[in-house]
Amino acid sequence: MSATTKAEPLVQKQVFRLPTYTTIGGRTIREVQVGYETWGQLNAAGDNAVFVPHYYSGTSHAAGKYRASDALPGYWDAIIGPGRAIDTDRFFVVSADALCNINVHDPNVITTGPASINPDTGKPYGLRFPIVTLGDSVRVHRELVRSLGITHLHAVAGPSGGSHQAMEWAAQYPHLVERVIHVIGPGFSITPWVIALLDAWVMPVRLDANWNNGDYYGGPPPLEGVTQALKVIALTARHWDWAQNSFGYRLADPANPPAAALDNQYRIQQAMQQNSSAIAGLIDGNHMIYTAKANQLYNLEEHVGSIKARILFVPAATDLVFPPQFAQGAAARFKAQGGNAEVFVIEGDGGHLEGLLGIAKAEAAIRRFINS
Amino acid sequence: MSATTKAEPLVQKQVFRLPTYTTIGGRTIREVQVGYETWGQLNAAGDNAVFVPHYYSGTSHAAGKYRASDALPGYWDAIIGPGRAIDTDRFFVVSADALCNINVHDPNVITTGPASINPDTGKPYGLRFPIVTLGDSVRVHRELVRSLGITHLHAVAGPSGGSHQAMEWAAQYPHLVERVIHVIGPGFSITPWVIALLDAWVMPVRLDANWNNGDYYGGPPPLEGVTQALKVIALTARHWDWAQNSFGYRLADPANPPAAALDNQYRIQQAMQQNSSAIAGLIDGNHMIYTAKANQLYNLEEHVGSIKARILFVPAATDLVFPPQFAQGAAARFKAQGGNAEVFVIEGDGGHLEGLLGIAKAEAAIRRFINS
Repeated sequence: MSATTKAEPLVQKQVFRLPTYTTIGGRTIREVQVGYETWGQLNAAGDNAVFVPHYYSGTSHAAGKYRASDALPGYWDAIIGPGRAIDTDRFFVVSADALCNINVHDPNVITTGPASINPDTGKPYGLRFPIVTLGDSVRVHRELVRSLGITHLHAVAGPSGGSHQAMEWAAQYPHLVERVIHVIGPGFSITPWVIALLDAWVMPVRLDANWNNGDYYGGPPPLEGVTQALKVIALTARHWDWAQNSFGYRLADPANPPAAALDNQYRIQQAMQQNSSAIAGLIDGNHMIYTAKANQLYNLEEHVGSIKARILFVPAATDLVFPPQFAQGAAARFKAQGGNAEVFVIEGDGGHLEGLLGIAKAEAAIRRFINS
Repeated sequence: MSATTKAEPLVQKQVFRLPTYTTIGGRTIREVQVGYETWGQLNAAGDNAVFVPHYYSGTSHAAGKYRASDALPGYWDAIIGPGRAIDTDRFFVVSADALCNINVHDPNVITTGPASINPDTGKPYGLRFPIVTLGDSVRVHRELVRSLGITHLHAVAGPSGGSHQAMEWAAQYPHLVERVIHVIGPGFSITPWVIALLDAWVMPVRLDANWNNGDYYGGPPPLEGVTQALKVIALTARHWDWAQNSFGYRLADPANPPAAALDNQYRIQQAMQQNSSAIAGLIDGNHMIYTAKANQLYNLEEHVGSIKARILFVPAATDLVFPPQFAQGAAARFKAQGGNAEVFVIEGDGGHLEGLLGIAKAEAAIRRFINS
């Protein structure tokens, strides 16, 4: 071996707690906690930090591994690490679980939401948990950032639902945030079509008889509803070409062709089911509903004028959720009002998920933006 | 009044019956019946006919009115009628309900499917009804066409699921069919992404506790599942721009803004719910599942060489189900093998539904094709 490989440091989940948090809507939640992870070191001035909010079904595990034996690193490991676009040799990178994070039963996720115990009653909130917006998660994360001694955010960078939160950071704290990297996002508001799409995403949870209007804790959870919800999400986050290129008309089982029985499947049907079933047990149905609501409420149209940050929009060419036309329109609008905006389009057949699985294609664009 | 308006003749639903029909899969169904409607007159040679198969949630009511007081005429009235592109002064136009038509409880729909009484048992079939393909509906309709004395089809023209059936006609009966007008269709097969999408369309029916594995006749039907299924269909049949232009961020009720409660809605959410609830009572959940299966099985890739008809492909620019790339690819392939194909793209923000609601935009292209 001519070169030694420097082992990357492992990452640890940590907990940030607030005794109380009052939502933008005016409701107070006691004993709020969210998990977080950090990479790199904060400098003495506290001004070399990058915050990374997560997407709808994501967590704060943006990069690295918890254990050397982990099968995969965090979702944006291709751009966060030593020498990478978001260079952890230079930057102190922080990510945190949002309020109502859907992966409640993942032991590495820490969040506060409908599945949490209400300290006032000793019972899970269910639908008695207050509505929270993405702006509320940002406010909680702002307190975390303050507690860590961060005085300035070199950038806030996130994909999809994380891109909305990045923009919320820039709108709520214009003098704290220098750059926004808005990956596979719609611009300054969610778009009306996606408001309806988010209803379709969580509809299966509500339709599951076990859901019981959100009161299922202690009984059987709406597991089939969660599974079917994940399938709708996985399909709409992909693209026609991905389906054609990855599956075509292959059969799940050539001995049981689709024409022979109602439940005989093509391979794409089987794969969607298997992938969703594999993770459904980690996920809480009420948290899916609350996070869908939070995304439906993402709307900064009235606050664009307050954003001081420079913005890099990174849409994906085949994204059917937030097609590039929206990011391009937002960039044009921001520039027309005197803002500084750039657009880099990720090519590939992966649909919306190019912003996660294909992020390496934007590595150079993000590196240039973050260093400029 | 300087001109008199010639009242169009009213259209009547009629019934075509077959004592038995054996499916392509080899199962025999007794007492098959499908409804049909006709416009214009068949000539003595029997060679001036046009057949119009219907789309997933459609019926044989392609044009005209049943009663002068009907609020709306059939879905393609803009192109079928006296002097229109499919000119009923020249052509004898026939449309028929498919097997497993979903609108079982519409008094104007006649079909045979899981909700029908099995003559062998005296009870509804439920999931014991055999799998039928779109090719099976075409074979039943071919017997109808024969019974009417039709010797030649000047054209077969249909939208979406009807476009698949039109192509099935051309593949199964190449010497009978002179032209195919394939509107908002994918070409010669359904596409893998839409195989998965059709699962998402009918998933809410299966998730409804009333569905009971298809045995709900005599008890409460899976009405909520059907309603939610119709919402998924209606959303995926539209487009981002349609949502923006038709609804924007308007609220369902300004006194109850979406941020204030989980069930407070934007107008687009409310409209999707109201539109689906209004028609769900006419629709059978099992028929939705069987018609989804029939569409999933649409695949003529091995039979393109047998098609003799000239084909006009009419995709819609904003179609997210069958975007124009598929029709364009199919046209190129058909021409490369020596076939005669043209493409006309319907512009507009209406998504897949441009092939129904925006069909007038293709009137001139269809007129030219049908007369050439």
